[in-house]
Amino acid sequence: MNNFIFQNPVKLIMGKGMISELANEIPAGKRIMVTFGGGSVKKNNVYNQVKKALEGFHTVEFWGIEANPTIETLRKAIALGKEEKIDFLLAVGGGSVIDGTKLISAGLLYEGDAWDLVLAGNETNTVPLATVLTLPATGSEMNAGAVISNTATKEKFSFFSNYPLFSILDPETTFTLPGNQIANGLADTFVHVMEQYLTVPGVSRLMDRWAEGILQTVIEIAPLIQKDKHNYDLMAEFMLSATMGLNGFVALGGIPQDWATHMIGHELTALHGLSHGHTLAIILPGTMNILRESKGDKIIQYGERVWGITGGTRDERINQAITKTDQFFRSLGLTTRLSKENIGTDTINEIERRFNERGAAFGENQTVNGKIAKKILSDRL
Amino acid sequence: MNNFIFQNPVKLIMGKGMISELANEIPAGKRIMVTFGGGSVKKNNVYNQVKKALEGFHTVEFWGIEANPTIETLRKAIALGKEEKIDFLLAVGGGSVIDGTKLISAGLLYEGDAWDLVLAGNETNTVPLATVLTLPATGSEMNAGAVISNTATKEKFSFFSNYPLFSILDPETTFTLPGNQIANGLADTFVHVMEQYLTVPGVSRLMDRWAEGILQTVIEIAPLIQKDKHNYDLMAEFMLSATMGLNGFVALGGIPQDWATHMIGHELTALHGLSHGHTLAIILPGTMNILRESKGDKIIQYGERVWGITGGTRDERINQAITKTDQFFRSLGLTTRLSKENIGTDTINEIERRFNERGAAFGENQTVNGKIAKKILSDRL
Repeated sequence: MNNFIFQNPVKLIMGKGMISELANEIPAGKRIMVTFGGGSVKKNNVYNQVKKALEGFHTVEFWGIEANPTIETLRKAIALGKEEKIDFLLAVGGGSVIDGTKLISAGLLYEGDAWDLVLAGNETNTVPLATVLTLPATGSEMNAGAVISNTATKEKFSFFSNYPLFSILDPETTFTLPGNQIANGLADTFVHVMEQYLTVPGVSRLMDRWAEGILQTVIEIAPLIQKDKHNYDLMAEFMLSATMGLNGFVALGGIPQDWATHMIGHELTALHGLSHGHTLAIILPGTMNILRESKGDKIIQYGERVWGITGGTRDERINQAITKTDQFFRSLGLTTRLSKENIGTDTINEIERRFNERGAAFGENQTVNGKIAKKILSDRL
Repeated sequence: MNNFIFQNPVKLIMGKGMISELANEIPAGKRIMVTFGGGSVKKNNVYNQVKKALEGFHTVEFWGIEANPTIETLRKAIALGKEEKIDFLLAVGGGSVIDGTKLISAGLLYEGDAWDLVLAGNETNTVPLATVLTLPATGSEMNAGAVISNTATKEKFSFFSNYPLFSILDPETTFTLPGNQIANGLADTFVHVMEQYLTVPGVSRLMDRWAEGILQTVIEIAPLIQKDKHNYDLMAEFMLSATMGLNGFVALGGIPQDWATHMIGHELTALHGLSHGHTLAIILPGTMNILRESKGDKIIQYGERVWGITGGTRDERINQAITKTDQFFRSLGLTTRLSKENIGTDTINEIERRFNERGAAFGENQTVNGKIAKKILSDRL
């Protein structure tokens, strides 16, 4: 086990009807900007619940934070927030709305252009922020990270600021989600855990177990959710798994982490607009295959404990584990080949070029550079 | 899944040499009382590390917080702390020192006798407190609870206050622990998880997995630790498991909890001075056996996932799971029968009398009253 420091101060408020807790949690006298995505919260009653809970508070609404939130949209929100002297932010939506609002929280206190903050990578001088989550996937509701896109430059980068003060998770808010968003969210949750797990065995035995526990839960609930998207208990497990998948809990013990799949996936989203979870489903089996030497022991542990693969040679067991992973993503209704999305060698070459230009060195051993990224992508044609 | 609210603000600082972080974590200008147990920290270099880290701070030492900390000792610490105008507490030791210091932290701001606070059950008006843990077991370093004893009345009650600000866990501090303290700590960790797990299946599928993950880890490391008590990685897993076993993480999802085994165990400690973990090892198999009807489905899940028990009738599987549990405790070197500790029907009758007098109704279904406690104890003669 490696040395580590851990602290996650987020107050998690989960369950039916919990949106009404907003009134007890937001300090009195705040000038609140409530941020939203494209309007789905008006169809599923979340908007009404939030409005009701915030009666008596001073609120301004900002609408239109898109999937893969862009600096172009967030600049508008920051301008509005400065004009309105906003001193509290409430993000209502999925990971994109929450991620975007994290940049707004720093941008409100920054004089220059907020894209500077994204390029710097972090800023903790922020306006306090809380969330009402409606789409389980990114874990943004219980971590300090965000991913922000730039339409003009077709770039997508990570940004770190402060944790939300509190996050409200009502599983009933997920009942109106379309199937593809659920599939993406399940894939996203799965790969978040894999990025923190699929390196080497036993740096922390306990964290290995907890990561496997989330993977097992997601695998168990995914087919049940597909049959019954309005099942409260299943959607609650999904929500809790997504939050626990990226809030630092399964990263205790200073475990090594990978994140190469994410870095390659971000480029696919930036270049082709593919949804985030979907890009991960395409890339992860390739990362496993191309890095099968360095990750082999852990892939075998994963195969055995998560999929029950116990027979065969080392290579056969690794192959089976990769196949099971690929099949799982396809069972969600996601394609897992670039060619199915009409993506070819041009894109692969462009990602290689970008990685080379930036001196990319991702993965737990910093081996995923432009050349290896190209191999991983070519494995998924 | 049930509705719940979760927040655990403790900053966990774990690893070799991390005691030196004290200087960065304690706010300047504080009047610190450092609390200790019986002096083992002078033998294992912890005292020297703490002294060195606190150079330049104003400190007062209080020594002698005993196992199962007593109100009699804590009254002395509170008197000293008031005299010295202490406004920061640093507990250096195991769960008993930390538990005792939690009561001191409330007692310093209370005019009356601190036993009033214990009888009230909770008090959150406290002086800030941090910990340096030296004995993995109780989880007190990352929760808000404590258990305080009264020698005069032979009573032992729970008390809840605030979380530590931060806790430092250096696995090397455990290298000088005697074997019986390690055995007790492993049993304590195991039963903490069981109290939050062994009720009914699937209230949270994910929490079931995480609880099983801690149990599997403890079962895996226990025999290895017995062979090699100076193995850093093993002791780190033990420390992390103990902390994660009782910090609210495996209780997410508003899961039902039991705690009847603890309540009966506390009485054995109060009446006979048996160490806490040991009492739990004696009682838990009895709780499982006497409550086999209501807990049956979960005992079968536990047997299958934790011990690999898949064959036999329902009753046979439950019996096997109980036997495995009893054998595990005995493998730690603990006796698991009251008669081995010369405890007989007099004690059982006294515990029944106390439970009846207090109107006890413990366990997830509030069914463990005096009569059921007597049955459980009689099962362990």
